[in-house]
Amino acid sequence: MYRLNENYLKLPGSYLFSGIAKKVAEFKEANPDRKVISLGIGDVTLPLVPAIISALHEAVDEMASPGTFKGYAPDLGYAFLRETIAAEDYRSRGCNISPDEIFISDGAKCDCANIQEIFSQDTRIAVCDPVYPVYVDSNVMAGRTGNYDPAAGTWSRVIYMPCTAENGFSPDFPDEDPGLIYLCFPNNPTGTTLTKDQLQDWVDYAIRIGAVIIYDAAYEAYISRDQVAHSIYECKGAESCAIEIRSFSKNAGFTGTRLGFTVVPKAIRCGEVSLHSLWARRHGTKYNGAPYIIQKAGAACYSREGKAQLKEQVALYMENARVIRQGLADCGYEVYGGIDAPYIWMKIPAGMTSWDFFDRLLTSAAVVGTPGSGFGPSGEGYFRLTAFGNKDDTKIAIDRIRLL
Amino acid sequence: MYRLNENYLKLPGSYLFSGIAKKVAEFKEANPDRKVISLGIGDVTLPLVPAIISALHEAVDEMASPGTFKGYAPDLGYAFLRETIAAEDYRSRGCNISPDEIFISDGAKCDCANIQEIFSQDTRIAVCDPVYPVYVDSNVMAGRTGNYDPAAGTWSRVIYMPCTAENGFSPDFPDEDPGLIYLCFPNNPTGTTLTKDQLQDWVDYAIRIGAVIIYDAAYEAYISRDQVAHSIYECKGAESCAIEIRSFSKNAGFTGTRLGFTVVPKAIRCGEVSLHSLWARRHGTKYNGAPYIIQKAGAACYSREGKAQLKEQVALYMENARVIRQGLADCGYEVYGGIDAPYIWMKIPAGMTSWDFFDRLLTSAAVVGTPGSGFGPSGEGYFRLTAFGNKDDTKIAIDRIRLL
Repeated sequence: MYRLNENYLKLPGSYLFSGIAKKVAEFKEANPDRKVISLGIGDVTLPLVPAIISALHEAVDEMASPGTFKGYAPDLGYAFLRETIAAEDYRSRGCNISPDEIFISDGAKCDCANIQEIFSQDTRIAVCDPVYPVYVDSNVMAGRTGNYDPAAGTWSRVIYMPCTAENGFSPDFPDEDPGLIYLCFPNNPTGTTLTKDQLQDWVDYAIRIGAVIIYDAAYEAYISRDQVAHSIYECKGAESCAIEIRSFSKNAGFTGTRLGFTVVPKAIRCGEVSLHSLWARRHGTKYNGAPYIIQKAGAACYSREGKAQLKEQVALYMENARVIRQGLADCGYEVYGGIDAPYIWMKIPAGMTSWDFFDRLLTSAAVVGTPGSGFGPSGEGYFRLTAFGNKDDTKIAIDRIRLL
Repeated sequence: MYRLNENYLKLPGSYLFSGIAKKVAEFKEANPDRKVISLGIGDVTLPLVPAIISALHEAVDEMASPGTFKGYAPDLGYAFLRETIAAEDYRSRGCNISPDEIFISDGAKCDCANIQEIFSQDTRIAVCDPVYPVYVDSNVMAGRTGNYDPAAGTWSRVIYMPCTAENGFSPDFPDEDPGLIYLCFPNNPTGTTLTKDQLQDWVDYAIRIGAVIIYDAAYEAYISRDQVAHSIYECKGAESCAIEIRSFSKNAGFTGTRLGFTVVPKAIRCGEVSLHSLWARRHGTKYNGAPYIIQKAGAACYSREGKAQLKEQVALYMENARVIRQGLADCGYEVYGGIDAPYIWMKIPAGMTSWDFFDRLLTSAAVVGTPGSGFGPSGEGYFRLTAFGNKDDTKIAIDRIRLL
């Protein structure tokens, strides 16, 4: 006789974005003539840039010929990609990260969800509140979060670090010491970020209490201000306490192409054991590499043409962010984020829940956003809009919101 | 303070194929002039067929244009692929599997390794011995296997089902009742398989004791005999007790392209809960879909041209299998498998361990195979060769083995 992993049964409702997708599908079915504009899920809309398309075609051709065909990829990913990342994302910023500390994967979401597996079940996690749901849900599934309090929307063994307008969306160190600290900056969902000095404080804190930081830097490409670190390894000592997770989804439009990577420096050790060796073992046993052609596409992001084309693409999205920020501010909403990130976090009118606002926006304006409470209790009272829509639709959406 | 997942530390040595790769790399470095032929790891060598290459190019072009660009994939995978699979792999064989019971993934290895996550930690697993290491190692990492006995090469809480020449590589029902039964037919590593009647016995047994069968059918395309089932759902009642995992790696050469799928019928229930709902939750939370262009390539495998081209490719590999079988038999070795599978399982000379034979084959013949003991204690005394090499190399390898 078998039994199920009962931790799954503790999960309330379904994954946030699946829930939104269902509501939107119902609305569309009931209103087939209305054009719904989604500024909801953080999915990109601009096509892959020419440098990436060329690289994909070339790699496909390689797969057609016996001399250049590629079978199983090397365990950590192809050296051409890991070396490029080490040079372009790290050494160029003074970070001492070597290619063999970089693990290529099929995306940051999977890595964010899987990384907890190398830690003990009694390791306490700390997360920002609001937070990207995957960090918490993956720990729920692993049995690390205690019990759910439906009234509070919190788990008994998770340490929440509120991020609200009151603290400038910069979390305070928690009262209890966690073992694992999930940080995402530039932040999803708030669109805000920390300065390099603030991030250094977190690295110092983690070293002081013997914790590991899981640093989700999926939105790094959107950083516009100099005082913001592009990598946590710009902070002193981070290579002894921080794992950094990166994505190609948002800087290069790979949400449907799937590529990411995780940096596990060899210097992070728990007693005699390096975390690198554990993650390598997981990677080798439970994963089998990103497709060769996708890894080639990833490398093309770092070519001269690739970089120039992607810079332009990011600028287009950030112009959307500006339009959204400006439009909402004109309507009298308080808005945050959208400067170093493709997310705008707005305060919703008093007296409404964020799901009320979601419903109102969907039914009255046919615009889809994401209710703040879906990201945690401190997200209540806020609403997330994304800058990933196309330019015209984004303007129409804001015009519709003006009329609310 | 955090702690590590100590189950990882129980794992002996490193993953089998990583270990082999290391030995081979050392040999090559010491013998730069010798051409090493690998009939070891089950990696394919023939390039992707034209129908797949065309589909990849077309899909890449779609990603270049705003109107056809694809972002995040639907949670279970694209309907065009799931519907094709349901029709071609299941309904055509009389199996009542619907598209929404099919979960597209980046490969069978990941699914094989991840599927255990939806079961409780005290669920006992049963595996064939020898066995594909991923089934056991993923359960070790999850803490489900008890302690390792280095002398025996076994885990205290794993139920082993020996498959040897003595029982015709058809495992007996174990003495203790497992909750989860991993079966892989056509089998890796032995290259043997069960008849449909024998498989029906396993389905009946699983229903009788209330167990779930994880059926790894990665080598289905190599089945040549009529009495062998292509899917476990050809057996009566299997949709209430069996999860089937399939791969595009071996039938279509996707080892470096990455695509697979898992079938979780909605009828498998543990009390009130369908396993389908748990796997859907895991898929939605810890995974983010296979790339669109790869899913299009997968669909091309089922087109008329795709099917014809892949049939030819499989036939080429099976000709290698014939050459290996014949060559080894001529030398007086006892050989098994290679009829319904791309693996040949040979008995090694008495008095040698299978790693001894590995070393001898590598150093004397510069041929790489896989030692049987790497797949479990009952694999000792055997050696695996694969039919995935190219035609000429396979012949040369066999000629070298003749001279041993």
